[in-house]
Amino acid sequence: MLDPITGKLVLCAPANTIIMTDTMSPKARLNICTTCTASSTEGATEPRHGRILFDKMVENGATLDIPFEIRAVECLTNCKSGCSVALNGKGKWGYVYGNIDPENMIADLQELATKYAETDDGIVPWRERPESLRRNVIARIPPLD
Amino acid sequence: MLDPITGKLVLCAPANTIIMTDTMSPKARLNICTTCTASSTEGATEPRHGRILFDKMVENGATLDIPFEIRAVECLTNCKSGCSVALNGKGKWGYVYGNIDPENMIADLQELATKYAETDDGIVPWRERPESLRRNVIARIPPLD
Repeated sequence: MLDPITGKLVLCAPANTIIMTDTMSPKARLNICTTCTASSTEGATEPRHGRILFDKMVENGATLDIPFEIRAVECLTNCKSGCSVALNGKGKWGYVYGNIDPENMIADLQELATKYAETDDGIVPWRERPESLRRNVIARIPPLD
Repeated sequence: MLDPITGKLVLCAPANTIIMTDTMSPKARLNICTTCTASSTEGATEPRHGRILFDKMVENGATLDIPFEIRAVECLTNCKSGCSVALNGKGKWGYVYGNIDPENMIADLQELATKYAETDDGIVPWRERPESLRRNVIARIPPLD
């Protein structure tokens, strides 16, 4: 589909790009780069590691009452440290995380995104983040007013 | 001052944290990390390199009709590749740039932020970016709807 904002192609699973639940806060979104290949010497893989990550997060979220949206996006310009995801939400600092293992960090990513959704400003204290993700913040960006 | 959104301390020059001009678009903002120390073996410096960058951008912008805001912020979590800045704006992809030389990249940063302000989606084509900044994108983050 074409993103209505950017006009760029957004890779997505037709039926479940965005998971919405009754208790969902529209103020938190987990953007997953589905064009990411995890850093390796093997070059690009098919399916992309980011696509595997997205599919697993969607599958995981389908059975839970998650308080955030999941969205597939293309390239977060963090290719050397993929897989990459970005958390954002209205009034919140946005965070880009890298080096996400699409096989073994699903629960941790779910936990982080849930805690992020519960904040007003997007700042999850370092010690409250899942340990696997603490050292994988690539950058953050301030909220707009 | 305390940021009204985050409640965190924002380091800023009292009179000119945000430069506003008659033609300013409120849709573009250059956030400069004033706690940054440029990567070096010297450790933290005083004044911080990010503070020097901020002061120079404010001084430079004061004489020009710039189409973006300039704002001082603390830590963009890109400390190993400082100085760091982040461009954001309503409906635009946000971009974090690193490795900014506070002495020699003022004009290039001004050019990039101006081009960014002129876009609807925040995407300045790679070849239209100042050469010094092309390889210094750290990450980007999608706009909210």
